[in-house]
Amino acid sequence: MYKVDLNSDLGESFGSYKVGLDEEVIKYVTSANIACGWHAGDPLVMEKTVKMAKEQDVGIGAHPGFFDLMGFGRRNMAATPEEVKAYIKYQLGALMAFAKSKGEKVQHVKPHGAMYNMAAKDKALAKAIAEAVYEVDENIILMGLANSEMIKAGKEIGLKVANEVFADRAYNPDGTLVSRKLEGAVIHDAELAISRVVRMVKTGKVTAINGEDIEIRADSICVHGDNPEAVAFVKRIRSKLEEEGVKVTAISNFIK
Amino acid sequence: MYKVDLNSDLGESFGSYKVGLDEEVIKYVTSANIACGWHAGDPLVMEKTVKMAKEQDVGIGAHPGFFDLMGFGRRNMAATPEEVKAYIKYQLGALMAFAKSKGEKVQHVKPHGAMYNMAAKDKALAKAIAEAVYEVDENIILMGLANSEMIKAGKEIGLKVANEVFADRAYNPDGTLVSRKLEGAVIHDAELAISRVVRMVKTGKVTAINGEDIEIRADSICVHGDNPEAVAFVKRIRSKLEEEGVKVTAISNFIK
Amino acid sequence: MYKVDLNSDLGESFGSYKVGLDEEVIKYVTSANIACGWHAGDPLVMEKTVKMAKEQDVGIGAHPGFFDLMGFGRRNMAATPEEVKAYIKYQLGALMAFAKSKGEKVQHVKPHGAMYNMAAKDKALAKAIAEAVYEVDENIILMGLANSEMIKAGKEIGLKVANEVFADRAYNPDGTLVSRKLEGAVIHDAELAISRVVRMVKTGKVTAINGEDIEIRADSICVHGDNPEAVAFVKRIRSKLEEEGVKVTAISNFIK
Amino acid sequence: MYKVDLNSDLGESFGSYKVGLDEEVIKYVTSANIACGWHAGDPLVMEKTVKMAKEQDVGIGAHPGFFDLMGFGRRNMAATPEEVKAYIKYQLGALMAFAKSKGEKVQHVKPHGAMYNMAAKDKALAKAIAEAVYEVDENIILMGLANSEMIKAGKEIGLKVANEVFADRAYNPDGTLVSRKLEGAVIHDAELAISRVVRMVKTGKVTAINGEDIEIRADSICVHGDNPEAVAFVKRIRSKLEEEGVKVTAISNFIK
Repeated sequence: MYKVDLNSDLGESFGSYKVGLDEEVIKYVTSANIACGWHAGDPLVMEKTVKMAKEQDVGIGAHPGFFDLMGFGRRNMAATPEEVKAYIKYQLGALMAFAKSKGEKVQHVKPHGAMYNMAAKDKALAKAIAEAVYEVDENIILMGLANSEMIKAGKEIGLKVANEVFADRAYNPDGTLVSRKLEGAVIHDAELAISRVVRMVKTGKVTAINGEDIEIRADSICVHGDNPEAVAFVKRIRSKLEEEGVKVTAISNFIK
Repeated sequence: MYKVDLNSDLGESFGSYKVGLDEEVIKYVTSANIACGWHAGDPLVMEKTVKMAKEQDVGIGAHPGFFDLMGFGRRNMAATPEEVKAYIKYQLGALMAFAKSKGEKVQHVKPHGAMYNMAAKDKALAKAIAEAVYEVDENIILMGLANSEMIKAGKEIGLKVANEVFADRAYNPDGTLVSRKLEGAVIHDAELAISRVVRMVKTGKVTAINGEDIEIRADSICVHGDNPEAVAFVKRIRSKLEEEGVKVTAISNFIK
Repeated sequence: MYKVDLNSDLGESFGSYKVGLDEEVIKYVTSANIACGWHAGDPLVMEKTVKMAKEQDVGIGAHPGFFDLMGFGRRNMAATPEEVKAYIKYQLGALMAFAKSKGEKVQHVKPHGAMYNMAAKDKALAKAIAEAVYEVDENIILMGLANSEMIKAGKEIGLKVANEVFADRAYNPDGTLVSRKLEGAVIHDAELAISRVVRMVKTGKVTAINGEDIEIRADSICVHGDNPEAVAFVKRIRSKLEEEGVKVTAISNFIK
Repeated sequence: MYKVDLNSDLGESFGSYKVGLDEEVIKYVTSANIACGWHAGDPLVMEKTVKMAKEQDVGIGAHPGFFDLMGFGRRNMAATPEEVKAYIKYQLGALMAFAKSKGEKVQHVKPHGAMYNMAAKDKALAKAIAEAVYEVDENIILMGLANSEMIKAGKEIGLKVANEVFADRAYNPDGTLVSRKLEGAVIHDAELAISRVVRMVKTGKVTAINGEDIEIRADSICVHGDNPEAVAFVKRIRSKLEEEGVKVTAISNFIK
């Protein structure tokens, strides 16, 4: 049976600043990437989000990023692999404490924003991230862009890995995402986005921006809960996947 | 046989800022309170300090504080018990990751500065800290000012506790520390300081500032490694304790 | 002719976090307290908010607070007067640069949250704040709780001062605000709130919580722009004041 | 008469962390680049450093950097020109307040670390920095790497500019600094370093790493005060310059 995970970034509120329809979107996803206080999130938000994930039986993931709240972790920073390795351990450990205090374990680590994008291409950074996770707990799944350097680094060190795909993004022929600065990078037609995802899950293929079919492994689909439209899209994508005979379930249930 | 632990705050460097003779003082103490990145310390420093503690076979402790690097965590902040509880989990978890990645466990938690002083007197805050530690790992020892609310809260919830004493500080008749703002608060005579500590360890008594003998339990003695004089004092206090037949060893070896 | 200012806290967004209906409420107020990046706000938000205030011909005010974004500057911190003095200079200067770069001047300083509340009662802190403003620019107006230590300190040093009143808060017989923890602290009846404000402006009197009339000077009324109801209330209070023959204008137009 | 300025980064302490022999080196330099609280420095340190600069009659300069205390502002960050423009205004304004409160003016702005290096080559970033300074105060001098994009951007907008040279660094034939990662990048021979500087000042020439003579304008020489050797070198370079008939004086005295 086909299986896929739906993941969403959650717990991105900070202090008085509230963002995200976490309580809504968590009902439809199977894994949560929880911000760890560096690019977003704070300890109270982490506590609450882990509790919510446990109650909804959603996989708990650490979502570490750069220490750049002002830029929401979306700005590249010239941190060394050694620094990033320590940053991952720090943030992962912080989330593990909240999970442990609720009798739960952290299922996966998915780096955020600039760190995610940099590590998709930078072998040394990807290796540093994989090492950090492996050294802290070799049973945690590393989630990264499908076919990226992060996935390769995870496999190499002996971690379980989850290939992430994007419903609403165009792909280059080499499997990387088309830059948001280019036309056609974002797929605005929801029907098309959903049918692309279903095809990725069931056939392991997607049509790249040049019209060519490429291979892609879809373990987890990235969805959003920022606004009511985004949540409606998550419900729709989930229904469609289930209609198509795809079981929507957390990565820990099928990635071994 | 009499047993006592010598603890010191370590890993207080941050980024380019280097402080403390950590490599020196760690040879003579038996437990390290490692800053967790909020009032001092950063992930690289934590990684290095945990490694050093492991190599020197020194007990690894989390030293969480307020998010106030500018004030080094020494300024009282009106954080709620719920907030402090989450802050402790966050910082403790971060340190646990570094310990786990080196095959080690966190031995104890000792809050820092303003958080330590506030929790010594504030029952609700003390309870929040004890709960945080207990929920994350009930085997971790809570270290606090001897006879303080923190010690009571730790015992009440079922944690092992370590009563901390100060060699160079005067005590009030009720067992609290004489405020640094008052004359006589700090004992500058090293001989006297050492003999007071030996007496605390061997007899459970100390002479309070009013001349009266009071009961005090000394599981761990707080020492410093900021400068060469401080390190020399640590060597001296350790030698004297050993001469007096006191075994100097980490709290995990005798607190059950 | 009666004159009064309406002030609101603006520019409280930070990075990706957007809060406040600034574009709406700024149409109805006459002075803006602009967050200076410590408890809220960031340089881009400051730039934008100063521009908006200039366009709407609203008095530009610095709204400095504690370096506690996680607590939105609402938590008391044991900072020394010397520290707070330097914090005020820093934040005021930052805002002055944005004002200067648009050909504008800073009209007033109103400390935020915990700093405001602490300085209302703490003479040394109030003096430190007044000194900071005076040393940077003696023409800037200091805004504080009517009759508070901050107002006294401002007058004493030679600053112009603006007494701030609250439409929706009950007063103690000594002119201080009734603590929010007590029943009756907040006036939920909009009609009543507005009529109290009109009376304060026109007669210099308000009925305290014990039923007694007390003297109060109302130079500026604090209003909010957090949500549509708050903005509607600001429009209503402004209309009512104008109906009652009160000129609503920035403090710099009548405080000499 | 030949004139040159000696500049040093000062005020880099933060909270409890003390660095730099500021009190020593300030006696021998003519301009101080004062950290503005983002990559180093805090309001108390700024207050103290401005006071010291005034007492020693040293030109007061703002030394803004990225908000990256953990990396001391030395790590490139993908901030947009619009963001950097606002960051410069913010930090410059903050320092101006401390200067104004002592009856002084800010003489110059010299960006720090990664921001300095990025803006030396990135035209858009250089323009943003020049605009920020110009909009806040068009009389302030912009200091940057000799012949860099920053110098060009400053001239273009109408600012006075100061070309900075390095005594201990090798130059490429195009006038840029040889990367520290390459052999020969740093000149360790103090005699040689000093004679190179004297030649730059008196003839406007320096020998590039390939042996070729290139043109370079030396308005200000960057020196350090981190340790006693650095301070001794500053004394020596100053003596030698004076022996050679070069007047060592702040840039505001000769850059018009």
